[in-house]
Amino acid sequence: MTINERIDRVPGTDYEIIQNSKKFSYGTDAIFLSEFANPKGIVVDLGTGTGIIPIRIVGRKNVDKVYGIEIQKEVANMAKRSVELNGLEDKVEIIEMDLKDIPERFKKSSIDTVISNPPYMKSTDGDNNQDENFAISRHEIKCTLEDIIKIADYLLPPRGKFYMVHRPDRLVDILSLLRQYKLEPKYLKMVQSKSNSKPNLVLIESVKHANPELKFYNPLIVYNEDGEYTEELKDIYYKEV
Amino acid sequence: MTINERIDRVPGTDYEIIQNSKKFSYGTDAIFLSEFANPKGIVVDLGTGTGIIPIRIVGRKNVDKVYGIEIQKEVANMAKRSVELNGLEDKVEIIEMDLKDIPERFKKSSIDTVISNPPYMKSTDGDNNQDENFAISRHEIKCTLEDIIKIADYLLPPRGKFYMVHRPDRLVDILSLLRQYKLEPKYLKMVQSKSNSKPNLVLIESVKHANPELKFYNPLIVYNEDGEYTEELKDIYYKEV
Repeated sequence: MTINERIDRVPGTDYEIIQNSKKFSYGTDAIFLSEFANPKGIVVDLGTGTGIIPIRIVGRKNVDKVYGIEIQKEVANMAKRSVELNGLEDKVEIIEMDLKDIPERFKKSSIDTVISNPPYMKSTDGDNNQDENFAISRHEIKCTLEDIIKIADYLLPPRGKFYMVHRPDRLVDILSLLRQYKLEPKYLKMVQSKSNSKPNLVLIESVKHANPELKFYNPLIVYNEDGEYTEELKDIYYKEV
Repeated sequence: MTINERIDRVPGTDYEIIQNSKKFSYGTDAIFLSEFANPKGIVVDLGTGTGIIPIRIVGRKNVDKVYGIEIQKEVANMAKRSVELNGLEDKVEIIEMDLKDIPERFKKSSIDTVISNPPYMKSTDGDNNQDENFAISRHEIKCTLEDIIKIADYLLPPRGKFYMVHRPDRLVDILSLLRQYKLEPKYLKMVQSKSNSKPNLVLIESVKHANPELKFYNPLIVYNEDGEYTEELKDIYYKEV
């Protein structure tokens, strides 16, 4: 443990995770994505950060193995220590690498499920964070949305599933690129603060080479009319599986 | 008036419209679209049906002229009679033609705003209706989504606006095609039955040659918790402007 680090419980599991509020800590989007995804077999998480998605998935879903890919040495190191902390070395492997080099490490079509909570902002956008780790995790500095979709396509066989969370303002980019790479978007779930508010996150399930037809789920609503968490939100955070 | 015809009030206006429950009558989607759109100047409505959108728009919005394009002779005739019924010949012109022939009739980039409530279903889908008018209005028999988007692009100058209503299950087709024709989707509004239900319609505003960034409006919710119409819905149907 280094300065500014703390250990948090991974919501909805018995596992713990090392976080660093000055460098990097996961957001609700990673929790929602790990809940939304229905992974199986061998899973790759592209841009795993502190490893929240691999650890939460092995705690809540039935998978054989999850590889977490992270380019930032310091953040990948935190994730590796969290895997050891929980004794999950057999189920989760954190790999410090540029995801664009994935073809050197993984065979084409060798992965059952790909997951990603990518940087949301274009590198040209403002809002540069003082800390480089934060910037890399939030902006498309080291990889673009297209890089991630291209790698997901590389890793998956036909019918393989790709789960992503992103911002609604990038929805045209996302859906157009997914279709372009033949990762057809099949299910979409919006996340919104209140029942009558606009969405602030979008969860997407794509299926490689599937036929076009997008289905919507009911939105995930965070707060009810009284400003309290909804039952669906509480189930995600507190319900054991 | 022919058999099976009736005269309805155009919701939220003093105008009337001829409908035919056996041949064709407008749906709530046309009302929502005419409310959502913010047209100006010279407007073209592609696939106008019985003319609900042109008539409601001149009743509620500030425009110079609306052309309603309709390929079905019988339906176009109903629309023409409704225009006469309201004395709107100076403001609305119904043109019976195939919209794919628009370049023979309108100059490129000559229209300020294009609107369309197109057929939702692919022509290969089942659900063939016994009546040909219904089938043409609901299925992509006479024109595809791409035909409509191509014609909207032809008619509009840079910064011109295109408003469309469609089904959420076609959202990937819609957003991909709009971007392909450089009619960048800028605003999206979902229509849903209840606050926690999935959307059953999607309203889209595209702006020709605009920068990519999609903004969402709060969803239009039809029924409140008590099963009554929401205030927003009542305003659309009953509020005078």
